Amino acid sequence: MTKRLLRALPLALLFSLLATSAFAQEGAVAIGELTYAVNNITLFICAVLVLFMQAGFALVELGFNSSKNVVNIMFKNFIDMALGVMIYWFVGFGLMYGASQIIPGFLSWGGFGVSEVGTGLEGLNPQANFLFQVAFAATAATIVSGAVAGRIKFSAYLIYTVFISAIVYPISGFWQWGGGWLYQMGFHDFAGSLVVHAVGGFAGLAGAIVLGPRIGRFAKDAPKHVFAPHNYAFAGLGVFILWIGWYGFNPGSQLAFVGATNIDAMMLVAVNTTLAAGAGAVAALSLSWFLLKRPDLGSALNGALAGLVSITANCDAVTNTESMIIGVVGGLLVVLATILLEKAKIDDPVGAWPVHGVGGLWGGLATAIFGGYALTTQIIGSVSIAAWAFVTCFALFSLLKAMGQLRVSPEEEEIGLDLTEHGAEAYSLTGLGVLSGD
Amino acid sequence: MTKRLLRALPLALLFSLLATSAFAQEGAVAIGELTYAVNNITLFICAVLVLFMQAGFALVELGFNSSKNVVNIMFKNFIDMALGVMIYWFVGFGLMYGASQIIPGFLSWGGFGVSEVGTGLEGLNPQANFLFQVAFAATAATIVSGAVAGRIKFSAYLIYTVFISAIVYPISGFWQWGGGWLYQMGFHDFAGSLVVHAVGGFAGLAGAIVLGPRIGRFAKDAPKHVFAPHNYAFAGLGVFILWIGWYGFNPGSQLAFVGATNIDAMMLVAVNTTLAAGAGAVAALSLSWFLLKRPDLGSALNGALAGLVSITANCDAVTNTESMIIGVVGGLLVVLATILLEKAKIDDPVGAWPVHGVGGLWGGLATAIFGGYALTTQIIGSVSIAAWAFVTCFALFSLLKAMGQLRVSPEEEEIGLDLTEHGAEAYSLTGLGVLSGD
Amino acid sequence: MTKRLLRALPLALLFSLLATSAFAQEGAVAIGELTYAVNNITLFICAVLVLFMQAGFALVELGFNSSKNVVNIMFKNFIDMALGVMIYWFVGFGLMYGASQIIPGFLSWGGFGVSEVGTGLEGLNPQANFLFQVAFAATAATIVSGAVAGRIKFSAYLIYTVFISAIVYPISGFWQWGGGWLYQMGFHDFAGSLVVHAVGGFAGLAGAIVLGPRIGRFAKDAPKHVFAPHNYAFAGLGVFILWIGWYGFNPGSQLAFVGATNIDAMMLVAVNTTLAAGAGAVAALSLSWFLLKRPDLGSALNGALAGLVSITANCDAVTNTESMIIGVVGGLLVVLATILLEKAKIDDPVGAWPVHGVGGLWGGLATAIFGGYALTTQIIGSVSIAAWAFVTCFALFSLLKAMGQLRVSPEEEEIGLDLTEHGAEAYSLTGLGVLSGD
Repeated sequence: MTKRLLRALPLALLFSLLATSAFAQEGAVAIGELTYAVNNITLFICAVLVLFMQAGFALVELGFNSSKNVVNIMFKNFIDMALGVMIYWFVGFGLMYGASQIIPGFLSWGGFGVSEVGTGLEGLNPQANFLFQVAFAATAATIVSGAVAGRIKFSAYLIYTVFISAIVYPISGFWQWGGGWLYQMGFHDFAGSLVVHAVGGFAGLAGAIVLGPRIGRFAKDAPKHVFAPHNYAFAGLGVFILWIGWYGFNPGSQLAFVGATNIDAMMLVAVNTTLAAGAGAVAALSLSWFLLKRPDLGSALNGALAGLVSITANCDAVTNTESMIIGVVGGLLVVLATILLEKAKIDDPVGAWPVHGVGGLWGGLATAIFGGYALTTQIIGSVSIAAWAFVTCFALFSLLKAMGQLRVSPEEEEIGLDLTEHGAEAYSLTGLGVLSGD
Repeated sequence: MTKRLLRALPLALLFSLLATSAFAQEGAVAIGELTYAVNNITLFICAVLVLFMQAGFALVELGFNSSKNVVNIMFKNFIDMALGVMIYWFVGFGLMYGASQIIPGFLSWGGFGVSEVGTGLEGLNPQANFLFQVAFAATAATIVSGAVAGRIKFSAYLIYTVFISAIVYPISGFWQWGGGWLYQMGFHDFAGSLVVHAVGGFAGLAGAIVLGPRIGRFAKDAPKHVFAPHNYAFAGLGVFILWIGWYGFNPGSQLAFVGATNIDAMMLVAVNTTLAAGAGAVAALSLSWFLLKRPDLGSALNGALAGLVSITANCDAVTNTESMIIGVVGGLLVVLATILLEKAKIDDPVGAWPVHGVGGLWGGLATAIFGGYALTTQIIGSVSIAAWAFVTCFALFSLLKAMGQLRVSPEEEEIGLDLTEHGAEAYSLTGLGVLSGD
Repeated sequence: MTKRLLRALPLALLFSLLATSAFAQEGAVAIGELTYAVNNITLFICAVLVLFMQAGFALVELGFNSSKNVVNIMFKNFIDMALGVMIYWFVGFGLMYGASQIIPGFLSWGGFGVSEVGTGLEGLNPQANFLFQVAFAATAATIVSGAVAGRIKFSAYLIYTVFISAIVYPISGFWQWGGGWLYQMGFHDFAGSLVVHAVGGFAGLAGAIVLGPRIGRFAKDAPKHVFAPHNYAFAGLGVFILWIGWYGFNPGSQLAFVGATNIDAMMLVAVNTTLAAGAGAVAALSLSWFLLKRPDLGSALNGALAGLVSITANCDAVTNTESMIIGVVGGLLVVLATILLEKAKIDDPVGAWPVHGVGGLWGGLATAIFGGYALTTQIIGSVSIAAWAFVTCFALFSLLKAMGQLRVSPEEEEIGLDLTEHGAEAYSLTGLGVLSGD
């Protein structure tokens, strides 16, 4: 070893240290950028899937209703999305995820709008986060349109849309996902069996009760075809789309997608969601087959949706086998809850409450039974959210009713909302030689 | 250089070494986590696209059939997915990808269910893998419903669904994708022209033959509109959805998505899939235009599907130009095979066999002709899978027939399965002033 | 410190240096591979979303038209995709992104086909890039089919499809996205308000003018139902699908997806797109409600589309608030432009020009007003692209008209193109007991 080499050592060492450190820094930045990209792109894709559910809701609701109200139902489902994204941007998002709590645990405020620039590579990009959140808000809002179909004024529905998107959904949403009192007491609702679906389901129940049933709905000689689904193809397509959209809803709620823990959780969530949907459909079909003595498509479709709603709160906390049990119970409950509404003479034309209300409550409960969360907490949280949505919306719909602004006239209802509210018919079949024979 | 510095050298060096090694380790973990995330998230998205194909199949099949069987067809397509995901979870997945081979190369068994936790960062998350695989199983199952439409008992279809999801598809699937005898002899079927589509197509052919044609289907004075597509809009939408879903089916079958080799393969697959679909549609349209003297939408739609099926086995192994040639041949074959069925008086209402059976066989053959795989092996593999599905399903359908459990009564068939099996009508057009003129 | 340790130092140091360097290299490769994967997979997913828009266009157009032309409209929308992907592969892509400029700034050529192998880890995989680009070309082409619906010959539409996919779209596309004269003068059109939508909208206007209106369209006693939308459910579903597809169209146009800058841009684009769509729908609904005295679904749907088209050029350059203003103006313009066409007795059955033509021009202008780009440049660019598409397509349609190959006979038009061009009816409702009462 020459002395010269020895002399060069410290310099070389310094260089080596700097190189290591420089590369470490550069590599860390690159890894940070990739992580940021994967997290936000995945959330973005999941948001798009959830937004696609809007089309699914529209089709299920119009398919399950009379052909004289198709334009009206499509319109409500479309405009609550169009209006809702702006309302939630202006008010709802700030209420739900606001940093400053006005009434600690119960009410927050984060100002208007949402930050348009990311904060370096930390966490989620605020715009991606908003897109995902607004898709959830739009889901809660649109569930109601099915329960009030066939008799609510279009203008009243617009008022309701603003109300739920700006106030009802964001406030109870804050209680749990914004870090409010439910979150603090340990309530668990992974992707929103309660926060989203029970809010929509119980708001819909309030609407159905305040509005009262459609004319003749519970009459003994009611013409069957007026209240039967007018288009099973649309209803079925709608449920397929909802099922697909749920792959954004539940797996996306993991919110972070890098690291074995996150990926393993996300994929378990995806398969649990699949199995619960299948189990719900098969269970509801089986029970309704036994009761009706024929396989009923509507029951199977709503059974799948009930399975999906039921698994939403707990899909991260149960096994595949448990997800099927949860789906089965959800599917059985939707059939029983539909019968219950029938007995109570409450007219919910698409079964919004059996699917989203009852399914949501069961999801919250199942999170305790199978997911290991505290039973009392799950009951308190589930009931509180459901009651909040029911009471506030009951008040709004009652106020509109008192002002004579809630329900269309009996004549308009008989003719159908398409012609009377919108001056249009959904279907106009001209040139159909086949209609007059072959 | 002071002596103090010299003394500090070894310590500094050690620190440098440790830092390098620590960072190398940390960096390698981070890169491993990112790779795991990208692989599994991409596979998950592709699985969602494939699951969406279920809606496409439902719409194509109901659109191409009579309006009196729409509820029934939607129901079959929906329930085979709901039931199929559970059956495949319980039985099929274990048979297809089981580690222990009961009859080496021919039959395996991997136990019930699927592992719910990942194995570190190695390979694919088992739940993501299951989701992708179950989407394929559901595809094979649902293809058949079109071929047996209009006359099969709903209960018989449920039995068939369990049979194909639990036994038929997983066993021949094991032969190739589970590492069985076909895989060992070098058979190539990239995404399942044979493993998925020919299984469905030949199972459907068996069903169509055992059932026999719909009443009056080959009568000289058959009322045309009874057997004509009842809704071209749904049929077209269905094919659009299937085309879109195929971007999960074929590119997702690369199964690994990091590294230039994987990405380059995946993207070639995506474009080949696109071009084969287009070429199939244009070729089938051209030939049918020549034969029918008018451009026929049904032929173009089935031509695109035939192009898609044909390219599925070999999309990783051919050039863009070759993909168009393969698509053209697939499109021509679907027209010719449809005529062949007509001559043979086999009633396959949606062309399941021409599209998936013939297209699948051609895909297997084209893998040899254009993809460079051994011709004999491709023929043996293709014929073996097709024969397996045909024979087993022929046996099942024959057994059900012998028990009087396969086909509905002539009266029920005339009235339509919607009313007789499900007590429902697909379409209920009330309040349509236009129907009685304007 | 022993002498032996001192002697080992240089060797250890060398090892440390090599290890650092080796790891740095290996780490850089891994990071490069991940970046390549994330960029291309994201672009691929966005391309799939854009391709899904084809189904949306088909449904909007057939829903807004008469039931006697449904097969024809679905067929045109389907075959322009099938034919277009091949034409663009053979000719269009080379013209649009060719390296060698034949007339500098105005015409380029890049040979037939597209490279099938990636170039290491640099930039985008050429096949992924082609898939994204061909989805845009197919969008431009398919917009026209709505404007010419109900009276154009199917064969003429095929010729038009080849013309726009091979020549019109690629040449003006080259001016901007291929690096031609518009790009060089600083014109900004982020995702194609002009390059894609105005091309389609003005090509459609040319077609509508040359064809002339449908028989009786502007007659005083025109039977309303012949020209009314025949199926609002399909129209609404189509707009939902288009809205969803736009999440590929705009966010995907960022073209690179790793790094905070890219992600922040992409997510801002996604939310701006959402808000502009919502604002467009609400604005068009409000204005049409004021004018028609009833809430009109068609106006709201086209308003959303106009909002989407308007934001497409500038979604990367404006704030959330500005995106809503842009959407509002787009929504108002679509209502006014529809009235303008009505006054001018130009028959554009789906409002292709109000939505894509006027919305596109407004998008280009808004890019100057809100996005900070030079006003003169934006006007020159916008007008040039619109004029190019209008003039070339006007010439083509005029030529076809002169040859008697453009329009079907009055008898064929009255009967409907489904029966006369394709020998088929879109809907065939058999077994519908309800049609003759309950």
